[in-house]
Amino acid sequence: MSEHIVSKYDEELNDVARRIAEMGGMAERLVDVAVGSLMRLDTDTARAVIADDKKLDVLQRECEERAIMIIARRQPMAMDLREVIAAQRIASDLERIGDLAKNIAKRVIALDGQFQSKRFNTGVEHMAQLSLAQLKDVLDSYATRDVEQAYQVWKRDEEIDAMYTSLFRELLTYMMEDPRNITFCTHLLFCAKNIERIGDHATNIAETVHYVVTGQVLAEDRPKQDDSSTTAVAYEQN
Amino acid sequence: MSEHIVSKYDEELNDVARRIAEMGGMAERLVDVAVGSLMRLDTDTARAVIADDKKLDVLQRECEERAIMIIARRQPMAMDLREVIAAQRIASDLERIGDLAKNIAKRVIALDGQFQSKRFNTGVEHMAQLSLAQLKDVLDSYATRDVEQAYQVWKRDEEIDAMYTSLFRELLTYMMEDPRNITFCTHLLFCAKNIERIGDHATNIAETVHYVVTGQVLAEDRPKQDDSSTTAVAYEQN
Repeated sequence: MSEHIVSKYDEELNDVARRIAEMGGMAERLVDVAVGSLMRLDTDTARAVIADDKKLDVLQRECEERAIMIIARRQPMAMDLREVIAAQRIASDLERIGDLAKNIAKRVIALDGQFQSKRFNTGVEHMAQLSLAQLKDVLDSYATRDVEQAYQVWKRDEEIDAMYTSLFRELLTYMMEDPRNITFCTHLLFCAKNIERIGDHATNIAETVHYVVTGQVLAEDRPKQDDSSTTAVAYEQN
Repeated sequence: MSEHIVSKYDEELNDVARRIAEMGGMAERLVDVAVGSLMRLDTDTARAVIADDKKLDVLQRECEERAIMIIARRQPMAMDLREVIAAQRIASDLERIGDLAKNIAKRVIALDGQFQSKRFNTGVEHMAQLSLAQLKDVLDSYATRDVEQAYQVWKRDEEIDAMYTSLFRELLTYMMEDPRNITFCTHLLFCAKNIERIGDHATNIAETVHYVVTGQVLAEDRPKQDDSSTTAVAYEQN
């Protein structure tokens, strides 16, 4: 293989890695801004999130096309093949994180003018901070190929899931307290579910980082456990 | 290329197609059984869905590995490359449909013993029938490479989305009527959202079938429109 071909190949691999880094930054920003717009019920910002998510979709499609061309033309083996597969998977997770941020933004628009109370927001904001920290850490672990940092992200997903389950209960209780809370709290529940899923995608990326560095699939059972789907709150008449 | 190599290659492609067909049948069954268990609040059946979803995950992982090996070793071009990429994408959509069915099944377990009313179920059951019909049609269109049938599925996704938006309103109304309905209707809302997302995955598969047959990305704007995220119901005191 001539040096020219090798360096062109490296360039292609670096180009995909650069796009992933760009997508990662964009996904973090979309989640942060979407949650901010929810906390302040700021519909203008929410509309900007919806528009920006399209750019992430375009980047993902480009990443996928480039990865496929590399596999088809370069026949990468072992570590290189894992790199390319990992890039495809991470691009797909980041694109879905963007979709979840967009969905939060859409709900901000629905909630415009609805009855609300600041106390509803605390739990959602706290969950969002944790999910964002997970996303940031897992993107760092991908950039530096730090398999231990990826593993820590993977383990911490439990915390987000536990938070979501307790928030689910809390919001159902507000709904039972006063029917005027129902619409707002229902949308918040869906927002919280979206944030919990953002955490799941960070966990997926952690698994991908583990795979790309070690060549092994993370063997332990995934700690994730969203118990809200098995959570019920009984209504008690006062 | 020797005949031996060609026929081994065809065999590999057929093997992937067979696995997709198997996954498709399994995904349809999981959705059907999960929705059935929700209608009857049958927790034993729900538990069986949760266990069976694991098989779908294993099949998807195998499909993906085989598709990557074909791309790396055979360097497929044009139509063949599209076939392999399509197989990967469809396997991923079917795996996610299985996850959504599993999530419905988990909620059946949560709802065991909760206050409920049969009238809540009608809308969800109707939506599920439409989603299942979409899934069946799109899998047929993939098996027969029928791009027109795929296009019809793609267009019809609007109906599921409209149904979901109206169901969202209806369930919020039941919640406002009587706080004892809140837990049940909240879980039903999440089930309805899962069914709506199953429809989205059928639409993704329709786009993939279009791509594999024509080599083109469906150019029209996607008709899908889940308006529930912009839907609010105001509580009016009687």
